[in-house]
Amino acid sequence: MSRENVFETTFPVRYAETDQMGIVHHASYIIWMEEGRSQYMRARGMGYEHIEREGAFMAVAEVNVRYLAPARYGDTVAVRTWIDDLRSRAVTFGYEIVHAGSRAMLATGQVKLIWIDRQGRATRMPESVRAVVDS
Amino acid sequence: MSRENVFETTFPVRYAETDQMGIVHHASYIIWMEEGRSQYMRARGMGYEHIEREGAFMAVAEVNVRYLAPARYGDTVAVRTWIDDLRSRAVTFGYEIVHAGSRAMLATGQVKLIWIDRQGRATRMPESVRAVVDS
Amino acid sequence: MSRENVFETTFPVRYAETDQMGIVHHASYIIWMEEGRSQYMRARGMGYEHIEREGAFMAVAEVNVRYLAPARYGDTVAVRTWIDDLRSRAVTFGYEIVHAGSRAMLATGQVKLIWIDRQGRATRMPESVRAVVDS
Amino acid sequence: MSRENVFETTFPVRYAETDQMGIVHHASYIIWMEEGRSQYMRARGMGYEHIEREGAFMAVAEVNVRYLAPARYGDTVAVRTWIDDLRSRAVTFGYEIVHAGSRAMLATGQVKLIWIDRQGRATRMPESVRAVVDS
Repeated sequence: MSRENVFETTFPVRYAETDQMGIVHHASYIIWMEEGRSQYMRARGMGYEHIEREGAFMAVAEVNVRYLAPARYGDTVAVRTWIDDLRSRAVTFGYEIVHAGSRAMLATGQVKLIWIDRQGRATRMPESVRAVVDS
Repeated sequence: MSRENVFETTFPVRYAETDQMGIVHHASYIIWMEEGRSQYMRARGMGYEHIEREGAFMAVAEVNVRYLAPARYGDTVAVRTWIDDLRSRAVTFGYEIVHAGSRAMLATGQVKLIWIDRQGRATRMPESVRAVVDS
Repeated sequence: MSRENVFETTFPVRYAETDQMGIVHHASYIIWMEEGRSQYMRARGMGYEHIEREGAFMAVAEVNVRYLAPARYGDTVAVRTWIDDLRSRAVTFGYEIVHAGSRAMLATGQVKLIWIDRQGRATRMPESVRAVVDS
Repeated sequence: MSRENVFETTFPVRYAETDQMGIVHHASYIIWMEEGRSQYMRARGMGYEHIEREGAFMAVAEVNVRYLAPARYGDTVAVRTWIDDLRSRAVTFGYEIVHAGSRAMLATGQVKLIWIDRQGRATRMPESVRAVVDS
């Protein structure tokens, strides 16, 4: 899956996401990336809510984020999500977070997830997901 | 300002907003109400980000929420916001949170805010806000 | 169970709990009350983590908080928790949050919870909890 | 400053920190690391709350976390914090998060912060901090 398959989702910064430095707290970007991932998967017909009901779970194994410029309350941000690396047991999502208006780059990141079953054991990507990914 | 002035904003439930009970954590609703308030004010031309820059702040004095049915990851929720009570020194917002699809009521609430200045002293609603509210 | 049965737990304010107003965000108090409830129950030998494993869950039905003075990063806060009202199907916890050093009152609150089973149906307090509560 | 200067702080997992996978949400670890950093600095006599009052701020430039095993509600976790790299304009903190009882490793991480002034411009470490760090 190539970098062209970028899915973009936009939303306003929430007041609760700021901290006393007057900017968005760095942990909020991790949650935005997760929301980007949710929307990416729904847009491709494999909503993660359905996958979990089938007994497959994606556990976060690694998070790497670089913060380039602050986001602020009043801003609308765009989260750009794509698949950076795809294996039978792991998926790495790539991210760019930009200011929706100016397109200024705010952060870049990667999140690696591994497939686990209900008992928390490492497993392979479910067939239902593979079918969508391969299509 | 009457109950007819209801502003509705919708968004998907985020995975991070759930807890191990498998439903949305009750504190997330408080943040949704705050986001409803933000959108309400922006829609009326008095974005709170601009008000703060003028040196006026709205501090939360009281929160009351009743939880009627759980929201879940995969749901889209609609936050309905209106002004319940308006005084020169305090504003109480009323809320209904409904499932955007079924319109099932998930929660109702009230949040009372007081106006404070940069030093944290109680003050009156800024003139710029009063002008909008009275129009 | 009388007001004398107050359990107090103290912890430092976390930076992430603040917002751009320079004080602790109001939703953080809801999470502090939940943590007060967790410690209250553990101290009485009925850790909620054990109760859930037996298939009983406490769902929040109502939250009411009054904010009296701001908490700030650098403060240590004390959450004082007690049982305000106890029924077979519902428990209401009472709370005071104070500044641990000055004992200044920061907030008061009440949280009502109802017992539900794995299917989310209203149920009665488990026998194991009743035994502790009655002792 | 060597790896021997490890500061450890322990606290219970909060219910709100879990998600519907039944484990602690990955963003919570980022907040725990920030709290580890707060306690590290206080223990060395340079509480970050005092530094900000002098007009110096530490902005997060990079976060890297590897998740090795899940933390759960009911667990007490220990955050081990040290300084990995120290420059005049940047500090990188190293972290290990372990289960306080079993000492099982849950996560490792690094957070790089840069010094900025009130206007958000990159600056050098304040003299008051350097004096402590060099001592």
